[in-house]
Amino acid sequence: MNASQVTAHLPPGVAVTDPDLLAGYVRDESRFTGAATPLAVLAPRTSEEVAACLRACHAAGVPVVTRGAGTGLSGGANAVEDGVVLSLHRMDAVLDIDPVERLAVVQPGVVTGALRAAVAAQGLFYPPDPGSVASCTVGGNVATNAGGMCCVKYGVTGDFVEALEVVLADGRVLRTGTRTVKGVAGYDLTSLFVGSEGTLGVVTEVTVRLVPAPGPAATLVASFTDLASAGRAVAAISAAGLDASAIEILDATTLSAVDALTRMGIGGAAAMLLVQADAARPGESAQVLGEAAALCETAGAEVAVSEDADEAGLLMEARRQALPALERLAAQRRGDWLLDDVCVPRARVVDLIAAVERVAGETGLVIGVFGHAGDGNLHPTVIFDRADEDSRAAAMRAFDAITAAALELGGTITGEHGVGRLKAGWLTRELDPVALELQRALRRTFDPAGILNPGVAL
Amino acid sequence: MNASQVTAHLPPGVAVTDPDLLAGYVRDESRFTGAATPLAVLAPRTSEEVAACLRACHAAGVPVVTRGAGTGLSGGANAVEDGVVLSLHRMDAVLDIDPVERLAVVQPGVVTGALRAAVAAQGLFYPPDPGSVASCTVGGNVATNAGGMCCVKYGVTGDFVEALEVVLADGRVLRTGTRTVKGVAGYDLTSLFVGSEGTLGVVTEVTVRLVPAPGPAATLVASFTDLASAGRAVAAISAAGLDASAIEILDATTLSAVDALTRMGIGGAAAMLLVQADAARPGESAQVLGEAAALCETAGAEVAVSEDADEAGLLMEARRQALPALERLAAQRRGDWLLDDVCVPRARVVDLIAAVERVAGETGLVIGVFGHAGDGNLHPTVIFDRADEDSRAAAMRAFDAITAAALELGGTITGEHGVGRLKAGWLTRELDPVALELQRALRRTFDPAGILNPGVAL
Repeated sequence: MNASQVTAHLPPGVAVTDPDLLAGYVRDESRFTGAATPLAVLAPRTSEEVAACLRACHAAGVPVVTRGAGTGLSGGANAVEDGVVLSLHRMDAVLDIDPVERLAVVQPGVVTGALRAAVAAQGLFYPPDPGSVASCTVGGNVATNAGGMCCVKYGVTGDFVEALEVVLADGRVLRTGTRTVKGVAGYDLTSLFVGSEGTLGVVTEVTVRLVPAPGPAATLVASFTDLASAGRAVAAISAAGLDASAIEILDATTLSAVDALTRMGIGGAAAMLLVQADAARPGESAQVLGEAAALCETAGAEVAVSEDADEAGLLMEARRQALPALERLAAQRRGDWLLDDVCVPRARVVDLIAAVERVAGETGLVIGVFGHAGDGNLHPTVIFDRADEDSRAAAMRAFDAITAAALELGGTITGEHGVGRLKAGWLTRELDPVALELQRALRRTFDPAGILNPGVAL
Repeated sequence: MNASQVTAHLPPGVAVTDPDLLAGYVRDESRFTGAATPLAVLAPRTSEEVAACLRACHAAGVPVVTRGAGTGLSGGANAVEDGVVLSLHRMDAVLDIDPVERLAVVQPGVVTGALRAAVAAQGLFYPPDPGSVASCTVGGNVATNAGGMCCVKYGVTGDFVEALEVVLADGRVLRTGTRTVKGVAGYDLTSLFVGSEGTLGVVTEVTVRLVPAPGPAATLVASFTDLASAGRAVAAISAAGLDASAIEILDATTLSAVDALTRMGIGGAAAMLLVQADAARPGESAQVLGEAAALCETAGAEVAVSEDADEAGLLMEARRQALPALERLAAQRRGDWLLDDVCVPRARVVDLIAAVERVAGETGLVIGVFGHAGDGNLHPTVIFDRADEDSRAAAMRAFDAITAAALELGGTITGEHGVGRLKAGWLTRELDPVALELQRALRRTFDPAGILNPGVAL
């Protein structure tokens, strides 16, 4: 197989085959996932060029891995042997913002943070805010049904996707969904494409729902002397149904790593909860946080509440630094990190954290825990020595043990990062055999030749 | 074909073939839709019995129409020639209510109003409230992705469905979704089954998300001297992003019919808007309705606001009587009604209403308009003389003209009732050819023998 079988059929300027450039498209941010140097990177500028790319790949039988910004954590954008990477970075236009219908229409390569900024300028809000919000793309978010800190109040990416334009494996183009609030004409293809990790088609346009701008954020910081108490506070806040816009947790390992990176003076506690409220009506956020503070204090926390929006931003930035801080900690030990994305029922967060502590004890590895406690979606992050085979094997064992614990607690193997290549083996443990058969049959219906992201998910 | 080919293979007590009973299962509440007397009614009591029914029908090649309470308005539960009706009325248990995770697990035959009452007893709220909430079932709501008055704030049925148990056409059983808030392990089969109108499988268990109980409802009534002003008020309230829990409209025809039925003294206006707010925090609903009142007054309305929950209930009951009242009006003229379910972008509600007025003028028929103005989802209801062929033809012309107008305004042919048999021909006008091909391929993937609800939707 060589690249010219595909590139010869493309408009000029779409294909890149310079080896120096190809090296940047081998893999995403995941660890322990297979990858290869692609034959070529295809960088179309329009839906028609995407269709041309897929027609050419389909005719030649060449695998296609679609890529947004490459910030994924499960290997969903890793290139495959004898395949091409279809990068949507040139399709980065915000095509329309409609303040009356509260909709935006964007190309898939728009950076999520850029969309948020563009709609904010019109007094509107696009809630999804994955950790990589400053660099990830809306198309990538659609592919994994990405979440973020907002989900506890606002929901995940899929809750905001109203309509799509999609190019199928053979180059046919279709539209799904409507610009209306409701609509039940035909099967919900939109939801089927959301979270399908580039295996059913290539999304070339996304219509998203917007909401009115929130009020200024107020924030509560609760410090706990043990993890279990923090878990109890999470369960109590969840059960109370408080209208919080974020309920985030960081454990001692993560806190000390963040403190080392940011010098914010937040190290020392066994766990910290950050609770944020963004109610539009004055006084309401303070009331929500007052109730949350009482519940945290009952669980044994020291609590501070700030209604200063800048301080709120700073605290959330500390939370956003969790992974970079753990990455730095690993690097100082010439090590690496392996991040999980399990999700359990909200009341079981404390059990999951306990399981992670057991696994850390058993494997002798450092495991930092942080994540979206209000959703039960945690990111236990295993630190290991890349150069040491035993340490690598222990990291993989720890990762598997944590994932198994989540399933045992009635949870799922992935809350917001997707199955990708990292957890393809795990999917068969979560889904029942009939569901798996049906998932495979669906994939064949969309992509009979099997050229879309082979090796991912199923 | 005779019934024994199926019934001989079923557990005792499942099949009913008494002709007097079969007559009650011929059709739903729709008009102008084909129907037939079923060979038998199958009334399973468990998922295993549903699986046995489907295995028997699959083996015999007998079509299966799944039925909830038969309150549908698009013919989705109409029996077909040489087919059976699978009625889920015996599977009506609320299996679990989990106040911590805010989930309920129910069988499909649970009446929606009964579920709402059961969770309310635990301080929780299940928002979906179709017009037939007192008699329709959760399974039927899942089949059409039913809405109601709550949608403008809370969303449609599908927004509350977290997981399903489904029996496939050949009797295999699968589970979809998770009990966690987030989850992206595999394709979103749950959303695919929601709104699939009994064509992809039979839902035998539904896990729904609940929300904290709302506050007492406060209500605004705005009377307008012309319809266009009401439309402008709707657009203004929508654009302001007010947190209203219902924004309903009734036109003059509907108002006078409701007044004749209820003697509430609400006739006379050209249009009435009902705006409701149900904020949990004291004082907030009054504030929301104060803002809505100002916008209605600017649009020229006379406005009254009530914070009395009983009065709010009474006003919403008047709205719920819209269809029964129009039905009574039709009956007094020995006539019948044909109800549409179009949905347009919110700002186009006024244009849709104008189009309906034009159609009424052109056909000489009475057409009452009511519906969920805040969603753009209206139910223009054509009154005609059943016994007069010309009047019947004019009603069908009016219905088609209104549906066409909705598509032209960027809307959809069905907001919440489903395509059914009534609008199967219209689906090909809304969806593009590639989407239609894909929809048909999906249906074949789930039901290669084509026994599930033939003639519905596609």
